[in-house]
Amino acid sequence: MRIVLLGTGNLATRLGMALLAKNVEIIQLFGRSRSSAALLANLLECPFTSSKKEIIAEADLYILAVSDDAIPDVLTDLPIREQLIVHTAGSVSMNILATVSKNYGVFYPLQTLSKQKEVDFSSVPICIEANSAENLAKLRALAAIISDQVVQVDSMQRKQLHLAAVFVSNFVNHFYSIGEKLLLEKQLDFDLLKPLIMETANKAMHHSPRTVQTGPAIRNNKTIMDHHLKMLEQHPEWQKLYELISRDISRPDQE
Amino acid sequence: MRIVLLGTGNLATRLGMALLAKNVEIIQLFGRSRSSAALLANLLECPFTSSKKEIIAEADLYILAVSDDAIPDVLTDLPIREQLIVHTAGSVSMNILATVSKNYGVFYPLQTLSKQKEVDFSSVPICIEANSAENLAKLRALAAIISDQVVQVDSMQRKQLHLAAVFVSNFVNHFYSIGEKLLLEKQLDFDLLKPLIMETANKAMHHSPRTVQTGPAIRNNKTIMDHHLKMLEQHPEWQKLYELISRDISRPDQE
Repeated sequence: MRIVLLGTGNLATRLGMALLAKNVEIIQLFGRSRSSAALLANLLECPFTSSKKEIIAEADLYILAVSDDAIPDVLTDLPIREQLIVHTAGSVSMNILATVSKNYGVFYPLQTLSKQKEVDFSSVPICIEANSAENLAKLRALAAIISDQVVQVDSMQRKQLHLAAVFVSNFVNHFYSIGEKLLLEKQLDFDLLKPLIMETANKAMHHSPRTVQTGPAIRNNKTIMDHHLKMLEQHPEWQKLYELISRDISRPDQE
Repeated sequence: MRIVLLGTGNLATRLGMALLAKNVEIIQLFGRSRSSAALLANLLECPFTSSKKEIIAEADLYILAVSDDAIPDVLTDLPIREQLIVHTAGSVSMNILATVSKNYGVFYPLQTLSKQKEVDFSSVPICIEANSAENLAKLRALAAIISDQVVQVDSMQRKQLHLAAVFVSNFVNHFYSIGEKLLLEKQLDFDLLKPLIMETANKAMHHSPRTVQTGPAIRNNKTIMDHHLKMLEQHPEWQKLYELISRDISRPDQE
């Protein structure tokens, strides 16, 4: 399968490297910024272009790994017609690709990807969707080369996965950041929280999270909660969050 | 060091077992409920009582491992005077113990402890505090037997640690639970989120969380955020949380 990869961000980088590691042939990289494209192409050991006209028109698969906002722009005047094209976005409908090709789908790796940190793609669930059984089979075959967990989901399910991912990853990471800041204020090292962070994540691997909920809110310990709210007086946003989340944890219909 | 352990909950259980594993002698367990005390005493291979009058008065250390609410009740009529007593609570001042003994302190393991799940105590930070250098040294020696990370903090710092722990553990776990529920609604398996949960936690081990923040809020992608808010219409509490946290993530003074 000869692939053209479009994009130079975190996802394009990590996905490109995962493909390279499995000897899947990336025949060209396209990036709107010439310097970014050159940089990543060097890493992926493949030719690159920053001109749409120069995009190879006979690849087996075009992987659009750009941010959601950039998808319409990159799709405009893309010199392909019948080849299979996929996007990699959690919250974008598959049908956005119907305007550029007869064969299209989605290839969505459910993971938080940074340029700074390597990721073991074999454990990253890849959510696939396609406009035909034949295209789905092609995507499944490719996904199975780089990941042990390939799952077919429809666009609605994928959007729900993305929404859930915002809670369990983006929002969780923000709370790690709040924790770090609270510690800094009292000259405490963020390292102190790390075993707790890992244990909390590990617990979720083996238990339904609701069944292992701990802390003042689930015990409805108003003394501590009031005390914490008072301690957060300098941080009205966090105070509001503390109040809302504690109330949500102790809602009886949560059971 | 001959220890009397007071309490039969998650913390008493996990701490007792960590002490037992290191051959620290628990000479007696006290629990207000006779059946709970009997059960845990059996596990800890030690005598037990549910009568305060029968508490051994000559131990070297009394560890009060009960919930914050229960501390005043358990302290009343405790038959000790000069022996070292510690509590294990994140948000309770050390001085609450001054009424029962001349020698007191705090022994606070910073971890989320469940009866269901074993924990490797050697990686649990133990935060100690005491009313004298001598008592502090005793606590440090005991803590070092079961943990590799012993740190002296004052009551104010300990309360801040507890507050931060609520964010990075209790609230985080609640978000895992929201993720699980969102997936269930669309017939999706919670397992799909697990690699993401672990990767997000792992990232925090090696990077300051703010520097690896990803997602729609940090990119200020209003299209996706509006879409997510619409998807949460059936969950007004989560919708409100989504809005507040996204705004907090994108606040410029976060930098």
